[in-house]
Amino acid sequence: MPSIFTRIINGEIPCHKVAEDDRFLAFLDINPLREGHTLVVPKMEVDVFFDLPTDVLADIMPFAQEVARRIAKVVPCDRVGVCVIGLEVPHAHVHLIPIDRMSDMDFAREKLKLSSEELATIAGRIRNA
Amino acid sequence: MPSIFTRIINGEIPCHKVAEDDRFLAFLDINPLREGHTLVVPKMEVDVFFDLPTDVLADIMPFAQEVARRIAKVVPCDRVGVCVIGLEVPHAHVHLIPIDRMSDMDFAREKLKLSSEELATIAGRIRNA
Repeated sequence: MPSIFTRIINGEIPCHKVAEDDRFLAFLDINPLREGHTLVVPKMEVDVFFDLPTDVLADIMPFAQEVARRIAKVVPCDRVGVCVIGLEVPHAHVHLIPIDRMSDMDFAREKLKLSSEELATIAGRIRNA
Repeated sequence: MPSIFTRIINGEIPCHKVAEDDRFLAFLDINPLREGHTLVVPKMEVDVFFDLPTDVLADIMPFAQEVARRIAKVVPCDRVGVCVIGLEVPHAHVHLIPIDRMSDMDFAREKLKLSSEELATIAGRIRNA
């Protein structure tokens, strides 16, 4: 069965898209640690990040760099942190999280509750940044 | 003043080296969250990860992939997680952490106390994996 991310990539499940090219999709995490918390997902469905082909690994951070720069323009923060855990969805993905302090990257923290309208607004601002 | 990582790269401060090429150095974190917790550092001293030149960002994950594969051979784990926070040392660096559960990436957790001998042994095993 395709992963939830493949279903998002295929348009079967909606997302708040931030950026896309032929190999990667970036969209807002719907359970964000911070406003602007974004997932960068390779369209190729591979569970473990470091099992991705080397050329995909080589291209994912330059793609994420452009996304991170837009996030930082929209969300006041010290910088944009990066996290790959991947134990919950078996489709490699990179978290981009605006941070000011270490605890902003603490996944045990309670997630923000943002409405679909609020997420749509943030995604639009990042897309247009 | 050069960062502590530049001083490690220049050999002024010792480290438990895991891998090195002309642009990157990987060595064990001396305050590890898990055995095998490794830092991948670009030799170019830039504070913010996403301020690194795009070609350095493109090459860092393929370098980390090779290191992560070696870590996973030596340290039993589900996978190797990735984290870039960067609020403590103003020299971009990537944490590679063997993980089995989300909490293995929790930086608020108490760090392991490993002796220099133990770290040297782990580094040697990863280098030779």
